[in-house]
Amino acid sequence: MQEIITVETQGQGLYEITRDVAAWLSRAKVETGLLTLFIRHSSASLLIQENADPDVQHDLHAFFGRLVPPSDTPRMAYLRHTNEGPDDMPAHIKAAMMPVSLSVPVAEGRMMLGTWQGIYVFEHRDRPRRREVVAHLQGARS
Amino acid sequence: MQEIITVETQGQGLYEITRDVAAWLSRAKVETGLLTLFIRHSSASLLIQENADPDVQHDLHAFFGRLVPPSDTPRMAYLRHTNEGPDDMPAHIKAAMMPVSLSVPVAEGRMMLGTWQGIYVFEHRDRPRRREVVAHLQGARS
Amino acid sequence: MQEIITVETQGQGLYEITRDVAAWLSRAKVETGLLTLFIRHSSASLLIQENADPDVQHDLHAFFGRLVPPSDTPRMAYLRHTNEGPDDMPAHIKAAMMPVSLSVPVAEGRMMLGTWQGIYVFEHRDRPRRREVVAHLQGARS
Repeated sequence: MQEIITVETQGQGLYEITRDVAAWLSRAKVETGLLTLFIRHSSASLLIQENADPDVQHDLHAFFGRLVPPSDTPRMAYLRHTNEGPDDMPAHIKAAMMPVSLSVPVAEGRMMLGTWQGIYVFEHRDRPRRREVVAHLQGARS
Repeated sequence: MQEIITVETQGQGLYEITRDVAAWLSRAKVETGLLTLFIRHSSASLLIQENADPDVQHDLHAFFGRLVPPSDTPRMAYLRHTNEGPDDMPAHIKAAMMPVSLSVPVAEGRMMLGTWQGIYVFEHRDRPRRREVVAHLQGARS
Repeated sequence: MQEIITVETQGQGLYEITRDVAAWLSRAKVETGLLTLFIRHSSASLLIQENADPDVQHDLHAFFGRLVPPSDTPRMAYLRHTNEGPDDMPAHIKAAMMPVSLSVPVAEGRMMLGTWQGIYVFEHRDRPRRREVVAHLQGARS
């Protein structure tokens, strides 16, 4: 079973999709199996992270923004792929450092996430984007 | 088939679980298939790395400790999520940079790891923790 | 279904394997399913990235080369695993930061890659190497 989950992003940062994924999983009525998520872009990432304190999302965004600053920053002057904007090549670099696909086991009809784990799309571009995440489920029905 | 493998960690560093995973796989008697590992935490990672020279594990820990120093280090003063200790937010950042899930093909009843590849839990927190790794196996019995 | 795709690398950089994977998938005649790729090495990575502009590949290589310079660089003097050459331990570090396995959903017999996504082996070592990527496919035939 497959579905495309669409996420409308409004600039850099984390967008939680845990509920969207759980709702689709619930409709699928699979008891035990494996859920795979795949993002169809190379300038945004999937991420499983703590969803209790919003400051964690702020800090993740802040850290990666300092590690990979915009391409018009002097210390990034060696970058060549700059014609699509100063946020573009850093977005590809961040996308190389964080997951494009995730696999989450399913038991008793639910994702086996830890207590504090949420699923996010991490948008690395500045302008609004329509991002597609493929959800793929293999398993046995109850 | 699913099982939770528990790892008791004693501070930051790499803890090899290759034998635990192989032992479980051996009991499962699956000939050909796909093994998925998923760690149920956002401040520890899964990692496949060289298991020949222990210095590799030391160096990995040393590199990431320098790349993402404790939150009470002056250059990390921009971090907000600091109330759970100076090792907490860096742990989340490292967990974003390294795998939360891994997929390893199985053939002839064994993981198709390369000669030098071992499977590790990479603990990013200072204090002892009980970490849970879900092992999920899909495939055909012999 | 499983196959080993071999890639002969000639030093650091990205080597596209999208066509090799697609050709194998095409022979497998699976309509809907999940393709998993696994690289059997700890000093090279798998990566899904933009395949339109070759400058993206140059910049990815340049960024990670600066983030993790050779072990004979003064600021990397803390590294211990240096006996296999100055490119070896940085290769392990980069391999920890980028995927060892990838999962790509398959629909209508094709990988559900985005328009600009290509699949690469990212070689982190200097000398020529023979790299093995395991392709594993689960799904239903048409």
